[in-house]
Amino acid sequence: MVLDTVMKTKTTIKEVAELAGVSFKTVSRVINNEGSVRKETLQKVNDAISELNYQPNNAARNLAGNKSYSLGYVYDNPNAYYVLDMQNGILAECRERGYELVIHPCSANNKHIVDELATMIKRSQLAGLIISPPLSEMPEVLSGLDAMNIPFIRIISASEVSQESSPCVYINDRDAAFDITEHLIEQGHTKIAFLRGDDNHRSSHERKIGYLNALKKHDISINEDYQIDGSYSFEFGVQGAKQLLSLSEPPTGIFSCNDEIAAGALFAVRLQGLNVPDDMAIAGFEDSPFSRQTWPMLTTAAQPTNTIARKAAASLIQHLVHLRSPKTSVDSIPHLHYRPQLVKRESTLSVPSK
Amino acid sequence: MVLDTVMKTKTTIKEVAELAGVSFKTVSRVINNEGSVRKETLQKVNDAISELNYQPNNAARNLAGNKSYSLGYVYDNPNAYYVLDMQNGILAECRERGYELVIHPCSANNKHIVDELATMIKRSQLAGLIISPPLSEMPEVLSGLDAMNIPFIRIISASEVSQESSPCVYINDRDAAFDITEHLIEQGHTKIAFLRGDDNHRSSHERKIGYLNALKKHDISINEDYQIDGSYSFEFGVQGAKQLLSLSEPPTGIFSCNDEIAAGALFAVRLQGLNVPDDMAIAGFEDSPFSRQTWPMLTTAAQPTNTIARKAAASLIQHLVHLRSPKTSVDSIPHLHYRPQLVKRESTLSVPSK
Repeated sequence: MVLDTVMKTKTTIKEVAELAGVSFKTVSRVINNEGSVRKETLQKVNDAISELNYQPNNAARNLAGNKSYSLGYVYDNPNAYYVLDMQNGILAECRERGYELVIHPCSANNKHIVDELATMIKRSQLAGLIISPPLSEMPEVLSGLDAMNIPFIRIISASEVSQESSPCVYINDRDAAFDITEHLIEQGHTKIAFLRGDDNHRSSHERKIGYLNALKKHDISINEDYQIDGSYSFEFGVQGAKQLLSLSEPPTGIFSCNDEIAAGALFAVRLQGLNVPDDMAIAGFEDSPFSRQTWPMLTTAAQPTNTIARKAAASLIQHLVHLRSPKTSVDSIPHLHYRPQLVKRESTLSVPSK
Repeated sequence: MVLDTVMKTKTTIKEVAELAGVSFKTVSRVINNEGSVRKETLQKVNDAISELNYQPNNAARNLAGNKSYSLGYVYDNPNAYYVLDMQNGILAECRERGYELVIHPCSANNKHIVDELATMIKRSQLAGLIISPPLSEMPEVLSGLDAMNIPFIRIISASEVSQESSPCVYINDRDAAFDITEHLIEQGHTKIAFLRGDDNHRSSHERKIGYLNALKKHDISINEDYQIDGSYSFEFGVQGAKQLLSLSEPPTGIFSCNDEIAAGALFAVRLQGLNVPDDMAIAGFEDSPFSRQTWPMLTTAAQPTNTIARKAAASLIQHLVHLRSPKTSVDSIPHLHYRPQLVKRESTLSVPSK
């Protein structure tokens, strides 16, 4: 077929075994990451693999053991930077471990989302899934996947050691949002508004709780007019800031649920001739390129999406290895925790004029 | 195995054939898009497929006919919006035609790029590739893929009906850049600078030729100081604009090779307290979200990346169908042409003060 030229140069697992001076089965264990191989033996096999440029063929692996070496990444997110960071983090781990990645963007509003996922899993014969918000936070998706009995790991927004039964990477949005709000308070602000992201993302709610917690801790009265619900978009940032500026007593600081909203708020505030941060301090969340390409640059919370994605993939693969070879020590996917870190920049670094 | 729950409900091709009242082979022809099926028969089979919710299983298809139903998309591009638009366009076509997509970000600077692609094609058993710039414009990649005898389609920047032997989607950057420059001239500008993107992207050179062509057509003398080479990044836009503003006779208009550069230039110009467009007109290229999230919004050229990607995938799949079933009428991948369209916005819409 079309791949003749490539196929001719194919190294076999037998050649690897011969060069390494080990059995066929040992090479197979190494290739499939099954552990239980001595360090020196592992080294010999890996050296032979490098020398012969051996590449496990997934179709062959699948046929031989009726096992799949494909992971799926399922997402519905308008944030291009987030999605690419997630893809690249997962791919980095997949490449190292000899897995493939099937990407599956879809709509959280699709009423048949569970059927759609079932079809994809079946068609692509996936070994496991990585799911990001908001899909990862939808109960019907969770129960649907449980019924399909497919291993998966979810990235979710959660503040404490949670009661989740299925494997998760927890992003502690709540405490990071607390840090940002407290930073604004420390800069002298008491009139602080909050522009919230989409209702179907838990992060919107967690970040809002963090904001409210900081106000409470510092005995700042809560003003309902300063809390506007919207979506994770530049456009909402523009509209939300305009609404805040039209109040008889506008805030002096705006904490936006992500950097896109913050960039939009900045746009609207400057359009009215106001100075940032002197007339209005503005903070975002995520540390996306948006936060560094505004003038002034945005205070935000850095979320290491690429690392989170890679760790999630590593964790899932470790679990798949265990399913194939229960002798390995890990028997369930460990929970992972990340707390985004405050990054102070010019958009908040001054004392308000009033 | 893990997919038991899903597998139990699997509809077979035989059930589809029975419901449609046709042979197994006819259903197979429909599923594999092999043409040569009468319209009424096609309708009957498709109705049966819908009613039974039949989903072709790619592994089964591959085994049955030793054929692959996976496409690969190979890219090296820092522009998140471009990459996601490409992915989503290709995926839309893949879903409709029952293909899978394997994404493969890689580095154009990798000296072993051809080996890397060969490994990927082999490992994932790809049927064909879609390649975007700059990889699609590198002679070594082209000759490497030719040697592997794998069908592929490239997105490239080219102004005329080109002499390319392999299938391409041509993006006419040159003429679109001409349009933007001419628009600046029509706004009264004669001192127009050009901030160029990466050297290894043909689009950088094509857009520069378009810029120079417009100046020539309007008898505007060419000033070398107004032409700065850089990269497709916000940071270069900032740095390039600063350099232009430090000239003893700065330009009154800046045409930036893409919207990110333009957003950076806008940032730098406004940082110096200048008004856009009155003191400095700025235009970008691509019509990415960058161009609509600046103040003022950017004049640019709209490039329908999602459509381009989808058409490229459709064209490649059509070719693969032909390879399997040479009776179909299409015997080679047709060339496709796109010319990005001028979008006029506030960042250029005024007459310069000098």
